[in-house]
Amino acid sequence: MMNHRVIVKARPQGIPLSEHFELDSTPLPALTEGQIRVRNHYLSVDPAMRGWLADTQSYGARIEIGDVMRAFAVGEVIESRNDAFAPGERVMGLFGWQEYSAVDPSAVLLRISEPDFPMSLSLGVLGLNGVTAYFGLMDVCAPKAGDTVVVSTAAGAVGSCVGQIARILGCRVIGIAGGAEKCKLCIDEFGYDDVVDYKHEPDLEAAIARACPDGVDVYFDNTAGPISDAVIRHISVGARIAICGTASISSWDPWPSGPRYERHLLVKRATVRGFIALDYVDRYPEAVAQLGRWIKAGQLRYREEILDGIEQAPGAISRLYTGANQGKLLIRLPASRG
Amino acid sequence: MMNHRVIVKARPQGIPLSEHFELDSTPLPALTEGQIRVRNHYLSVDPAMRGWLADTQSYGARIEIGDVMRAFAVGEVIESRNDAFAPGERVMGLFGWQEYSAVDPSAVLLRISEPDFPMSLSLGVLGLNGVTAYFGLMDVCAPKAGDTVVVSTAAGAVGSCVGQIARILGCRVIGIAGGAEKCKLCIDEFGYDDVVDYKHEPDLEAAIARACPDGVDVYFDNTAGPISDAVIRHISVGARIAICGTASISSWDPWPSGPRYERHLLVKRATVRGFIALDYVDRYPEAVAQLGRWIKAGQLRYREEILDGIEQAPGAISRLYTGANQGKLLIRLPASRG
Repeated sequence: MMNHRVIVKARPQGIPLSEHFELDSTPLPALTEGQIRVRNHYLSVDPAMRGWLADTQSYGARIEIGDVMRAFAVGEVIESRNDAFAPGERVMGLFGWQEYSAVDPSAVLLRISEPDFPMSLSLGVLGLNGVTAYFGLMDVCAPKAGDTVVVSTAAGAVGSCVGQIARILGCRVIGIAGGAEKCKLCIDEFGYDDVVDYKHEPDLEAAIARACPDGVDVYFDNTAGPISDAVIRHISVGARIAICGTASISSWDPWPSGPRYERHLLVKRATVRGFIALDYVDRYPEAVAQLGRWIKAGQLRYREEILDGIEQAPGAISRLYTGANQGKLLIRLPASRG
Repeated sequence: MMNHRVIVKARPQGIPLSEHFELDSTPLPALTEGQIRVRNHYLSVDPAMRGWLADTQSYGARIEIGDVMRAFAVGEVIESRNDAFAPGERVMGLFGWQEYSAVDPSAVLLRISEPDFPMSLSLGVLGLNGVTAYFGLMDVCAPKAGDTVVVSTAAGAVGSCVGQIARILGCRVIGIAGGAEKCKLCIDEFGYDDVVDYKHEPDLEAAIARACPDGVDVYFDNTAGPISDAVIRHISVGARIAICGTASISSWDPWPSGPRYERHLLVKRATVRGFIALDYVDRYPEAVAQLGRWIKAGQLRYREEILDGIEQAPGAISRLYTGANQGKLLIRLPASRG
């Protein structure tokens, strides 16, 4: 049996494009002792991929040319040389952009215990996106009922989840998104109290001031750059800022310049904290269980955009940066239709 | 009886100088119900005064032209219309640059319960400087034995206390100070493991890298600006950065530019937090008791620079910015010699 894979062909300068990858196919290797073989149903497309492929330091080991592209995927164990995993079990983890993955158990991030949900959710609202939103908001930002919470990339897979959790907790939630369509989604679908369209607002800072008359208690940031500069000028005393992503900055080599925040953070007794959801892996089951309850109760909505076939994967990352996608971007493999 | 006071005459642009103040003398007012009268023994000179006098937003209400200059002072209650305070009691608080203060109890920050120490210490190592160091390090930075702790303005009244507490806790402590004399003080007097002279180091970042081969776990910052830029490039995963002061930046209007930290804070899962010791006022007794034990045990040293007479106060603030002072800067009033 052959395994179709996406291989890294060249290191991108900036956003990874299809030209940086190539498809190949190889026979399935035999499993070594302790390994499992996963047949992947869905492959994930994530903003973090740009950092993984960059030449500079990021989190996670660097990917080398010739490697299978690192990616989260969800699938079914079809063969096991590990007593802890039985064929038929569903798992999510770092299985790479490929149809079949022979991996050590350390690659598994989540064992899917609830079969009621579509498997694709374990790459989105019940996977990394959901747990990122959950821990980033709950643990890093500690929101209280009545707080004003601002979310950048508010309509995105993580942001939309953050906004809805904050609403469930009784916060006043303001989204920042780009374009009328995404802003409409924020209000109609995800229940934001107000939204600021950073692409069409002539004075972003004034718009944030209008939307947050009592100041910003919590800022969940996926963008960095000028959007953050505008928000941070309006934080209230004791504000908590979670840095989850830096989507608005195309290169960090060298570090770009921006206004210095130190004095403002001091005067406001504010906290800025960078976090990475992978650091919370031991607590994922707690988050997934809660997120699942909110979905069943109709309190937590999500969007998916699904592309069919592994050959769609290489060109998909750039969609995250053009704002073309709406919702969690996934690649569906034939296994999921079988 | 006449009260000699320092009045704000003009709002400084930048560092307050003697020309921005004038001395006057007025008869003592009668106390209103609930007030106490304090005869001040020592007046404090603090970097925060620049912010208090600035035209832009800072913490604490703005000082107006014609007001007595806001200042911490320590003295003895000589008259009381408040059952909670008896004549003879020693208190530290926001009593202003004046000989006699008629104040509400809300101005009192600390009631001095231990008479074994010189009263001046209640404005320094057993006062705001000490509690700033204590809570900024213990509460904001949560240092663990073995951590590498970097302190800017390492020989200063707050910095020297931070460095010594970190040493007591078993950390490896690196000071950043300006000039050979202060650097020598860091090593010989305050027990830093190593020191970096930011005024004479041709490549500050390389010097910090050499002094912190395992990265910086905790950075207690009193400077902001290029010194912080150099330190932050070398933080380790999970680093904690406390912003206590911004002495290296002469104006925050408009906010100056500097390198953006967001990506680095994300990759390093680092926390940056601004804090103000006045927010911890309910917990001062706990800190002062511990600091006093360390002083008695010979583990915590301090330096004072004392100027005699209230007429020295107006010109004293600028000494904090030229690096001319060594140790906590105080004005001694005749009361303390009586």
